[in-house]
Amino acid sequence: MGVSAKMKRSLEGTSWIRRMFEVGAELAAKHGPGKVCDFSLGNPDVEPPAAFQTALEAVVRERVPHKHGYMPNAGYPEVRAAVAGHLSTELGTTLSAGDVVMSCGAAGGLNAVLKTLLDPGDEVVASVPYFMEYGGYADNHGGSLVLAPTRGDFNLDVAAIEAKIGPRTAAVIVNSPNNPTGRVYPERTIRDLGAMLAAASRRVGRTVYLVSDEPYRHVVYDGVKVPSVFAAYPHSIVITSYSKDLSLPGERIGCVAVHPGAEDAKTVVAAVVTATRMLGFVNAPALMQRVVARLQGLSVDPALYRTRRDRLYDALAGLGYTAARPEGAFYLFLKAPGGDDLAFIRALQDELVLAVPGRGFGMPGYFRLAYCVDEAVIERSLEGFRRAIAKFPAGR
Amino acid sequence: MGVSAKMKRSLEGTSWIRRMFEVGAELAAKHGPGKVCDFSLGNPDVEPPAAFQTALEAVVRERVPHKHGYMPNAGYPEVRAAVAGHLSTELGTTLSAGDVVMSCGAAGGLNAVLKTLLDPGDEVVASVPYFMEYGGYADNHGGSLVLAPTRGDFNLDVAAIEAKIGPRTAAVIVNSPNNPTGRVYPERTIRDLGAMLAAASRRVGRTVYLVSDEPYRHVVYDGVKVPSVFAAYPHSIVITSYSKDLSLPGERIGCVAVHPGAEDAKTVVAAVVTATRMLGFVNAPALMQRVVARLQGLSVDPALYRTRRDRLYDALAGLGYTAARPEGAFYLFLKAPGGDDLAFIRALQDELVLAVPGRGFGMPGYFRLAYCVDEAVIERSLEGFRRAIAKFPAGR
Repeated sequence: MGVSAKMKRSLEGTSWIRRMFEVGAELAAKHGPGKVCDFSLGNPDVEPPAAFQTALEAVVRERVPHKHGYMPNAGYPEVRAAVAGHLSTELGTTLSAGDVVMSCGAAGGLNAVLKTLLDPGDEVVASVPYFMEYGGYADNHGGSLVLAPTRGDFNLDVAAIEAKIGPRTAAVIVNSPNNPTGRVYPERTIRDLGAMLAAASRRVGRTVYLVSDEPYRHVVYDGVKVPSVFAAYPHSIVITSYSKDLSLPGERIGCVAVHPGAEDAKTVVAAVVTATRMLGFVNAPALMQRVVARLQGLSVDPALYRTRRDRLYDALAGLGYTAARPEGAFYLFLKAPGGDDLAFIRALQDELVLAVPGRGFGMPGYFRLAYCVDEAVIERSLEGFRRAIAKFPAGR
Repeated sequence: MGVSAKMKRSLEGTSWIRRMFEVGAELAAKHGPGKVCDFSLGNPDVEPPAAFQTALEAVVRERVPHKHGYMPNAGYPEVRAAVAGHLSTELGTTLSAGDVVMSCGAAGGLNAVLKTLLDPGDEVVASVPYFMEYGGYADNHGGSLVLAPTRGDFNLDVAAIEAKIGPRTAAVIVNSPNNPTGRVYPERTIRDLGAMLAAASRRVGRTVYLVSDEPYRHVVYDGVKVPSVFAAYPHSIVITSYSKDLSLPGERIGCVAVHPGAEDAKTVVAAVVTATRMLGFVNAPALMQRVVARLQGLSVDPALYRTRRDRLYDALAGLGYTAARPEGAFYLFLKAPGGDDLAFIRALQDELVLAVPGRGFGMPGYFRLAYCVDEAVIERSLEGFRRAIAKFPAGR
């Protein structure tokens, strides 16, 4: 009984995304890595912008004492100031260094924020389909996730969220551009969400925080803008990372920004810092803090992903697949032909095409493709997609 | 009520070490940074070895696709293999890549391990004085710490630990070289501990894991050897980091090694990997994984710290202070003159000397000095130490 009973349950229900990643490794070992078309993981294939390498080399050459040592748990003051400056423009709310905490990626930031907000038994409302790690994150801190449906177009259903808010609700979490749907929630929806949260907070007698997970903020297409939650609701916390912006997901660097007008904002920031330490993150990696401070506002060119989106979306639509055209991020969420997502992704695996079943996002009957892959992979995959859908004629 | 009630309690009881770090920043701002003698934080003042910079530059120049991308959550296979090879020699037990998980520092590794082992209500036994973050780490996963006393010389009291083991005990945690005492537990004690744990596991009907937190393993003096817990007890997990070995605490890079003969060893490793993901660490920072893989077995020269230890210990003993001479790490744990650790560290603050009270390690009446500071700081501090002890004649 080395592993706890709780952890054993987690192992059994382990992430579909990571499970597919493992299947991919097995198939690659068996058939050769060039044979597998792996759409399972949101691991950007686009290399970091050239300015990243320049900044990294400059930071590595810098002669600074204790350069790899501890700094305040919140991050270097000058890094926080640089991030605050950029986010002020981006979010339309003036932030200072004291409103920003550097984090170990968005996932690390989210955990520090949930530890800050949640008492045991508290709830966090999320909208389906959703990044299922949220459930584990809430559970890490004694909380649980309560799920609201989205609309048919995967836009937020503000009334459905409202119906899930009660006296145990500590926060509502939104993720736009969305993983897995690629949906960007429009400004009007975010405004409605803010107004609803203000009313719901009064109704339930506690401030319900809005936690906005925005790692894909800069990966948007066709001139779509990601509205600012800060403009819509003061009790908001924005969490983002440089993982997708700069193609650095392995480096674990991101940040948390607390709206300065949030209730107890200063205490919330102090608690996020303390939570960062208590959870064992301690601080965001030192070197990468200095690097991203020099690259505020820089992002990989989303046009690189748009080309892939267009090719994949158009080709699959031509083959009879059904999906909403993504407005951002690099995911395509499609109806599973035949209706059984597991059966369908197994049919795709037979074609050496890897996808994640919709149940991995709380929505069976769909599947997700991460199109952050080389265009050659997309081309190579199309015959497999054609053959797979042919096996499920009812799904056409 | 933005911040949870639980977190508010944590904020009130926030780390004494970090509180002193903040006091230091305030005093430095008021009196000038050159005036404050800061012994509060274990932030190595010794720069990383030259080979670190060479390896870092080489890794930064390497042209590898997806170099900053995701890798398996356990770390790069080749990095795990390099670490396993080195630890096999160091711990005297043959390890393979599959026994090692790369972590975000020792703190990140410890949290992944405790999440793996603890069910809600489970207990972890630690020996006082101890690194108080352990309490928060156990609580993160629904567990709690149970404290056993040490012997007068701060060596482990194996019988006292045994007395604390019951059916809720998931693990015993040891930390050698010890923070805050600098004690290295001798091989015979570790052997006795292993034998006791085997018997206690039978008595309570569950395998009690031995978790060994060893970030200071290579910072030892006078030929002292840190014995291997793997040699003493198969149900052991070693957690270490490169923070102190290579003076990189800000980079958050470490590792977890599970004894291959531990009960359910493979499942334990899989659970540590899953816990790493679920807690939001996701993986150890990519770039630093590649760097430390090239530097296995390298460590800063402990002689640099030994010089400081000798100067500080001898000078303070000459002034009438009482402490055990540290065998490793870079901490000196002294009796507080007058017996009240808070009163005494305040007297030191009046002299612009920063220390951490013993209650920050579960042992009031003592105080800790981190002597990972420049020798000039030690020299400058001595007059303050002389004046402070003079105010507490009863303590002499």
